Amino acid sequence: MNQHSQITAASEELMANAIRALAMDAVQAANSGHPGAPMGLADVAAVLFNRFITLDPANSDWPDRDRFVMSAGHGSMLVYAIHHLLGYDDMGMEQIRNFRQMGYRTAGHPEYGHAKGIETTTGPLGQGIATAVGMALAERMHNARFGDDLVGHHTYVIAGDGCLMEGISHEAIDFAGHMGLGRLILFWDDNGITIDGSTDLSTSTDQRARFAAAGWHVQAVDGHDKEAVAAAIEAARADARPSMIACKTVIGFGAPNKQGTSATHGSPLGAEEIAAARAELGWTHPPFEIPQDIYTAWRTVAARGAEARAAWLTRLAANPKAAEFSASLAAPDAAALNAAIAAYKAKRSAQAPKVATRKASEMALEVVNATLANTIGGSADLTGSNNTRTKGMTPVSRDDYAGDYIHYGIREHGMAAAMNGISLHGGFLPYGGTFLAFADYCRPAIRLSALMRRPVVYVMTHDSIGLGEDGPTHQPVETIASLRAMPNLNLFRPADVVETAEMWELAAMSDSTPSVLCLSRQGLPTLRTEHVAENLTARGAYVLRETHGPRDLTLIATGSEVEIACAAADLLAEEGIKAAVVSAPCFELFTAQDAAWRAAVLGTAPRIGIEAAVRQGWDNLLRPEDGFVGMTGFGASAPAPELYEYFGITAVHTAAKARELLS
Amino acid sequence: MNQHSQITAASEELMANAIRALAMDAVQAANSGHPGAPMGLADVAAVLFNRFITLDPANSDWPDRDRFVMSAGHGSMLVYAIHHLLGYDDMGMEQIRNFRQMGYRTAGHPEYGHAKGIETTTGPLGQGIATAVGMALAERMHNARFGDDLVGHHTYVIAGDGCLMEGISHEAIDFAGHMGLGRLILFWDDNGITIDGSTDLSTSTDQRARFAAAGWHVQAVDGHDKEAVAAAIEAARADARPSMIACKTVIGFGAPNKQGTSATHGSPLGAEEIAAARAELGWTHPPFEIPQDIYTAWRTVAARGAEARAAWLTRLAANPKAAEFSASLAAPDAAALNAAIAAYKAKRSAQAPKVATRKASEMALEVVNATLANTIGGSADLTGSNNTRTKGMTPVSRDDYAGDYIHYGIREHGMAAAMNGISLHGGFLPYGGTFLAFADYCRPAIRLSALMRRPVVYVMTHDSIGLGEDGPTHQPVETIASLRAMPNLNLFRPADVVETAEMWELAAMSDSTPSVLCLSRQGLPTLRTEHVAENLTARGAYVLRETHGPRDLTLIATGSEVEIACAAADLLAEEGIKAAVVSAPCFELFTAQDAAWRAAVLGTAPRIGIEAAVRQGWDNLLRPEDGFVGMTGFGASAPAPELYEYFGITAVHTAAKARELLS
Repeated sequence: MNQHSQITAASEELMANAIRALAMDAVQAANSGHPGAPMGLADVAAVLFNRFITLDPANSDWPDRDRFVMSAGHGSMLVYAIHHLLGYDDMGMEQIRNFRQMGYRTAGHPEYGHAKGIETTTGPLGQGIATAVGMALAERMHNARFGDDLVGHHTYVIAGDGCLMEGISHEAIDFAGHMGLGRLILFWDDNGITIDGSTDLSTSTDQRARFAAAGWHVQAVDGHDKEAVAAAIEAARADARPSMIACKTVIGFGAPNKQGTSATHGSPLGAEEIAAARAELGWTHPPFEIPQDIYTAWRTVAARGAEARAAWLTRLAANPKAAEFSASLAAPDAAALNAAIAAYKAKRSAQAPKVATRKASEMALEVVNATLANTIGGSADLTGSNNTRTKGMTPVSRDDYAGDYIHYGIREHGMAAAMNGISLHGGFLPYGGTFLAFADYCRPAIRLSALMRRPVVYVMTHDSIGLGEDGPTHQPVETIASLRAMPNLNLFRPADVVETAEMWELAAMSDSTPSVLCLSRQGLPTLRTEHVAENLTARGAYVLRETHGPRDLTLIATGSEVEIACAAADLLAEEGIKAAVVSAPCFELFTAQDAAWRAAVLGTAPRIGIEAAVRQGWDNLLRPEDGFVGMTGFGASAPAPELYEYFGITAVHTAAKARELLS
Repeated sequence: MNQHSQITAASEELMANAIRALAMDAVQAANSGHPGAPMGLADVAAVLFNRFITLDPANSDWPDRDRFVMSAGHGSMLVYAIHHLLGYDDMGMEQIRNFRQMGYRTAGHPEYGHAKGIETTTGPLGQGIATAVGMALAERMHNARFGDDLVGHHTYVIAGDGCLMEGISHEAIDFAGHMGLGRLILFWDDNGITIDGSTDLSTSTDQRARFAAAGWHVQAVDGHDKEAVAAAIEAARADARPSMIACKTVIGFGAPNKQGTSATHGSPLGAEEIAAARAELGWTHPPFEIPQDIYTAWRTVAARGAEARAAWLTRLAANPKAAEFSASLAAPDAAALNAAIAAYKAKRSAQAPKVATRKASEMALEVVNATLANTIGGSADLTGSNNTRTKGMTPVSRDDYAGDYIHYGIREHGMAAAMNGISLHGGFLPYGGTFLAFADYCRPAIRLSALMRRPVVYVMTHDSIGLGEDGPTHQPVETIASLRAMPNLNLFRPADVVETAEMWELAAMSDSTPSVLCLSRQGLPTLRTEHVAENLTARGAYVLRETHGPRDLTLIATGSEVEIACAAADLLAEEGIKAAVVSAPCFELFTAQDAAWRAAVLGTAPRIGIEAAVRQGWDNLLRPEDGFVGMTGFGASAPAPELYEYFGITAVHTAAKARELLS
């Protein structure tokens, strides 16, 4: 390697100092931000980019680029400075000058989609590592399908002490070691400092031993010794295991009075210390001015990447799988899936099976997985409960990256973040399962799916007290509300086998919104026995049963409670009370409908909402005077039918509530 | 210390087989549950309880008892069987016969408060380990205050593969090693099986090396070799480090055809296999019948515990700190705190400082910590941002457990679970801080605080877009709603220095509800400039400014937006529109008020809610026709005042909305 040994050590030093200068000046201008990490890491970054990383700023989405993830996202100025120096056309100096200001791309933490080349949003600590593991796994899976000519890049991550203390790092490191992700290289910014002070205050783990225990290749270097860093990267690339390089660094390197202390972590250095740092570093240029020769050095990196991409394009053109490769990166085939799901719906409406929606999800997935070539299934060790593995799927392993099903282990958080990484890498549509109650375990990563607008699919079964005996720890009474509160997340709770199929079509076709699929453990009858081609779930809510003549009442329910609503309507009909039944599988999509549709569905009659969960979140469907049948506290451990009786979520109780409401 | 070597190996074998029989028969009767773990762990448990554990079933809350935590909570029948055999008076055989049935104490997973001797609720994997770390730390902290005569017990945890894969285990293990918790002993049920199959499917971590890297004493034994298990426990107790004993076990041990496979994990064995297991184990007794000599053996353990407690009572009676010790375990002194907070409120109302509520929280904490002897502060590495450390607090460390402030490290989840453990142990009132956005990182443990009814206090600062430049990853737009959805959790969002003091009084005095304190980064004026002795925050919401004459409008706001509501009311007053201002610092407490209070506060005039967060959760305060000024999506990175302008959360915008509503 070391293809660029013509770059003298002196110029690499300048490349690093340019990062330091931009970081300290931008933070000072913003009067907000974190200079310590970019200054401490500048040498590592200069070596990594100058000698190793392959990317093309002019084509920032080139599929075979190396991925660079700044897991210690508060060090965002490292990323922005590098992108500016490399010549990304959306990262001009006005962006650097306006770090952390409204309307600029240079947000406080790197935000995916805000600027080219930002591979993932970081800031919540540990997420970058776990997301990068997903990217590195996707790289191997894509390679297994399309070969070395088209897919062969590295994933580099910089992580701080905070990233390594967070629990998610354990899940990610364990999983990466098990999967043998040899092209994943993690730099630990071992500066011995956290916000509260020395790391001695809170940790004494031997990180090198910890990574080795998880099957990683481990090295330790002085993070300011560029040749040592380069040699370590060479060795890391040569090893078949994922690699961790512990880089002993000085936080805020170059600030003579503050470096090595937490004072440099999250505050501007101040004019005086910046002047001292300029002197210390021998950096004579004014703020936001970079000499041309330093730009030239950085642009050499960009030129190398452009050359590599050109060669890759030549290989792609000659590759028999070129069309298939491009298709893997494009939107899924909506027409094909729509046709397949419509045919499937017609069949199921006619058969009208009674199945749990988790089973119905598996049945729909058989169609989805047969139609779309690039779904990647998985579960956090609940495969048989989540029903996520369809016929013919084979496990992904270090010995077979051509598989399409991932045993994520008991690692909900790591799974969710890995799915973000797989989605960000491109080439695959990831879905993964756990129990809905354990959405809490992966919520920070779900939030990043939503924030980054990645169409990851969360298959979350056992979605209410209907799971029965496992009891309140496993019964998600408030989880649905907590997820509905999250922006840009579609939460589906289908009522039967047909709605479940419609839901899967929507989740698989989503281009910028993740989906949470809430599925029952218990069996549910088919309610949509009359086939309609239209995807009614796409409306969010619709009238499942209209009344003859004006409605006395509208019963609105989701998922397993739609059956109860229908039974209550039957009971009420015996008394001459006309109750329409509305199925509302996705509140978010319903809110997006026009006012006329919403008004027609909801009607003007009194309403009762029914959901085996807390009422919060029903604001858009119910008025204060309307009724609600659901939960007000935690669940209990007993067989499901007894729990429904005990908590009063029954047709009889609903009918009684209706009488009360109408009296 | 093998005090009971008179118990023959043969009888200990029977003690273990009694656990196995009860577990397989109870799961079979319930037709639901997990026989594999109790059967595999029966030998370890028999040795641990027979030879080591000190507890008194007749006085299950004796403070100096050993703590036993079944982190692999699905193996709940292990706990119930042991408690039955030990003679806990609420764990008769009818409880075992009715495992997982409505109204019985034998819930699917062990639920704290459902039966005596259950030290914590487990089931969500990894929580038991992290909670036990809190217990073990509390033991040392209590010991440092009251000495070996009154406090000197062990904390034993059984963890499965799932517990060790979960990220929270890393946070807990790292923290325990750092804190040098030598009286914490963890048994790893190393059975090589998870739900999906062999652990080879998803992990290849060397757990022994991993624990050693975190500073633990590590041993490995055959978990069915009782003398080896006993020797390992002896060695673990003798070592100054926390200990992990890897116990190689056979899941479902004794079921000849299914043992060692995932088939025994989470399903009944079936009548045929149970019969075969009876033959294999030589267990000739019918279901739910235990021979008297086996009861006698188990009751010897209970007698030993009763003797130990008697001796302890004698020591307590003679101890000069006896009264102080008892006070540490009792409810805090409400009268003293009420008086201190009232005096403080009077002073602050007069001074009317402009301070961020995170700073106001520190000021109130100065009063709380000076009044209550047993608060234990802490932060997940954001001490200077959360303002959680008051004057005179000293860090808790392995060298000084007498401290009262914990540097939890960048471990929100581990912190929350440790606080649960500290609270469950008794003797302390724990509070700990992080940013509100990172409530997501510890949500599973917050849920357990709520479910277990432990009055843990979560200090969560930077509670809105008002944190500014850190951007959307750090701005909790939906977090408040997600926490309000959770049963038995009080979420406070105080408007000024006075409400913040009232909030702290309520949080510190809570006996069965945890509190989340949402605090601003930005400075806020004192709005409660007129002193009233009554704790108005206890009402949940109250009229801060009433109108002269009938209201045209009611503005309802929380936290930093109450200032905006006041300014909007001023703007509207200039136009002759009379707007009352309601401050609503705690929705949960408001909902608990009587209808008259609620009606008087809310009034009948049109309403506008103001909160820099999503509207979900405002159902109880707003009607569909009322207005809301807040967020509808994720935030952005910019200075806070610009963000408030950009998102329209201003007095001017509120006034405009009011005009629209009234026109």
